[in-house]
Amino acid sequence: MGMTMTQKILAKHAGVDSVKPGDLITCNLDMVLANDITAPPAIAQFNKIGKPVFDKTKISLVPDHFTPNKDIKSAGLAKIVRDFAKKHGITHYFEVGRVGIEHVLLPEQGIVAPGMLTIGADSHTCTYGALGGFSTGVGSTDLGVAMATGKAWFKVPDAINVHLTGTKPDDITGKDVMLTLIGMIGVDGALYQSLEFTGEGVAALDMTDRFTIANMAIEAGAKNGIFPVDEQTMAYEKGRVPDGYDIVTADEDAHYSRTVEINLSELKPVVAFPHLPENTKVIGTFGDIKIDQVVIGSCTNGRLEDLKIAADILKGHKVHPDVRCIVIPGSQHVYMEAMKAGYIETFITAGCAVSTPTCGPCLGGYMGIMTAGEKCVSTTNRNFRGRMGHVDSEVYLAGPQVAAASAILGKIAAPKEVR
Amino acid sequence: MGMTMTQKILAKHAGVDSVKPGDLITCNLDMVLANDITAPPAIAQFNKIGKPVFDKTKISLVPDHFTPNKDIKSAGLAKIVRDFAKKHGITHYFEVGRVGIEHVLLPEQGIVAPGMLTIGADSHTCTYGALGGFSTGVGSTDLGVAMATGKAWFKVPDAINVHLTGTKPDDITGKDVMLTLIGMIGVDGALYQSLEFTGEGVAALDMTDRFTIANMAIEAGAKNGIFPVDEQTMAYEKGRVPDGYDIVTADEDAHYSRTVEINLSELKPVVAFPHLPENTKVIGTFGDIKIDQVVIGSCTNGRLEDLKIAADILKGHKVHPDVRCIVIPGSQHVYMEAMKAGYIETFITAGCAVSTPTCGPCLGGYMGIMTAGEKCVSTTNRNFRGRMGHVDSEVYLAGPQVAAASAILGKIAAPKEVR
Repeated sequence: MGMTMTQKILAKHAGVDSVKPGDLITCNLDMVLANDITAPPAIAQFNKIGKPVFDKTKISLVPDHFTPNKDIKSAGLAKIVRDFAKKHGITHYFEVGRVGIEHVLLPEQGIVAPGMLTIGADSHTCTYGALGGFSTGVGSTDLGVAMATGKAWFKVPDAINVHLTGTKPDDITGKDVMLTLIGMIGVDGALYQSLEFTGEGVAALDMTDRFTIANMAIEAGAKNGIFPVDEQTMAYEKGRVPDGYDIVTADEDAHYSRTVEINLSELKPVVAFPHLPENTKVIGTFGDIKIDQVVIGSCTNGRLEDLKIAADILKGHKVHPDVRCIVIPGSQHVYMEAMKAGYIETFITAGCAVSTPTCGPCLGGYMGIMTAGEKCVSTTNRNFRGRMGHVDSEVYLAGPQVAAASAILGKIAAPKEVR
Repeated sequence: MGMTMTQKILAKHAGVDSVKPGDLITCNLDMVLANDITAPPAIAQFNKIGKPVFDKTKISLVPDHFTPNKDIKSAGLAKIVRDFAKKHGITHYFEVGRVGIEHVLLPEQGIVAPGMLTIGADSHTCTYGALGGFSTGVGSTDLGVAMATGKAWFKVPDAINVHLTGTKPDDITGKDVMLTLIGMIGVDGALYQSLEFTGEGVAALDMTDRFTIANMAIEAGAKNGIFPVDEQTMAYEKGRVPDGYDIVTADEDAHYSRTVEINLSELKPVVAFPHLPENTKVIGTFGDIKIDQVVIGSCTNGRLEDLKIAADILKGHKVHPDVRCIVIPGSQHVYMEAMKAGYIETFITAGCAVSTPTCGPCLGGYMGIMTAGEKCVSTTNRNFRGRMGHVDSEVYLAGPQVAAASAILGKIAAPKEVR
């Protein structure tokens, strides 16, 4: 039986010719990631083992969740990571001010690449599947062991073929693609399976779309999401990673547990209603929903292209008086490029608060937390109850174009309502 | 007996010809200020009175301390302020994204002016004395009553004459002037007195210097700090406030309890050691002190000129690898102008985290809190134990030039050590 992209990458890293769904295998790891929240327990586990790090160039430590330190506790966590990085000479440690949101930063800095096997103590580690690698989230205990051994075990996943056709309409982003998919299959629709994106429609998605989509694979319960490597991938990697990375393609007779068809041409801007990413609704099919806050950023939608989409809509407009619009560039590099392109000026002129890169409000950390009864349109990835603050606050997930339009109109809105 | 500037402003607002130190008087208020922390208890007090606001154009409500909301509690406080501002049609309510740190914002927006009497439920309300007005901090209860009545009572303060001569050396800022003064007279040196700045040296201080100095009057225990209105003041106010503001000058025979002489030409860059602003030491008179963090911003030093001073030093340099340097523009306007002038680009290139305007770390709110054992050079106004986080962290107060030099060298340093 043929193998999927994911299965072939796993087999290669396990040193075997082939694997099949359900196999338990041990793989060599190309990159091991943790952040300021998950690294401290991983480090505690690592210290119990009493070995040196397996490879100081293959560990990434990114303080991004509660940094710049939001409180004394988070300052303590950040210090544990900093001290560990210094002690072990970790190559890819990123200090406050020289950092970004981990899943924006690692691709941007060329730390992850096609064909690589990456684990991270963060559920959205699946983001790097956009580059045609296998990446997935693990617990801090597994990560601590991995920092010492460079290995991790996996149960080989079955796969869903997400077959894309058509081209994106102008007002559609990768977020609409993914929220539509999650709406179709549900938050447990891909439980312990790969979401493998195939078809002519892939070419219609830019790299930012793909990062957004792969990022949210976990929101459908998937082990990972993965895209084929094409010219766009290679253009993205040019100058970031050395040539000679491993381009893996699915076998023609790869087995998929099911195929889901999405015609991109038919998509409409959507939001996911509280309190699950599967509660996808097309804008225009429900009544006015007034909002209190908009968040544009996160590992899902904090890239330069996301900010461009939002800035293009906000330009010449003002944020609605009743709305706080918080824009969070995904990295210092994104911040700088957005500034040079004039997006930051557009945001400030419109009345947005522009934050330093941080996960911040996405997981209820800081920088835009809600009290009871408040509603937020957010480009983040989860709208679980209480995710952005009070248990009686509500998060509506959307793409940056919907977020920007909603910020202007003070209610959930499609971009066409602004123009 | 002649009156000081402060006494004349108070007399005028009490509707009497003259006052003397110790008199208890009731004054009409020109502006009443509160923030996201202090407004909620003031509003609760106001609501008990059951009257409408005395003048919706004379109340300023500025959510700046824990906004963008750092947690659920702060989100609740911000909502109380927002709802109150909406209900009463408060003219000077500033929403997140259209805001700044209160004491940067009010002068910048022309809300305070020479001769005005302003009270604010924030101890650093004394900042506006830089413009030749009387302003001071009050408790939330007094503020709540003032929102209903437009009046407040005062005990007329005696005054210290701070007589300035000479001109500032290039590497000296207003912060050095004020820390030197506080070092001379102590944190209770001006208890319930005015600090009245006089002499030819006043002309050598730009408006930013004066704001910084007046801002920290409270750190010497003073009721207020006040500067004469001169050409620089009038140039600053041009376009901000209508002509015809009240220029008050001290009587020639005004009585001062004492005179303190400061020759600006003799000043050297200083820092205030933990844990009091009076622990002023000249840089170079103590050994190396390694630091973990630098904060450039706050109501004390978050103005455009402060950022220019820091950017000029950081340009072409990198923040020391062991230091987090957090830059916080004092308002959206400052942020925009700093961006247009290239300062933000300099900061990001150097490896600083640039925050949206907020009080943040100054009072241990968020955006740069320290854990045990950490040290910060900060342009803020207080270095009390635990002010910026853990009780075993340390804050060294300094001007922006010292903060920038220290960020580069990783230890407390004067600018000349960088150049």
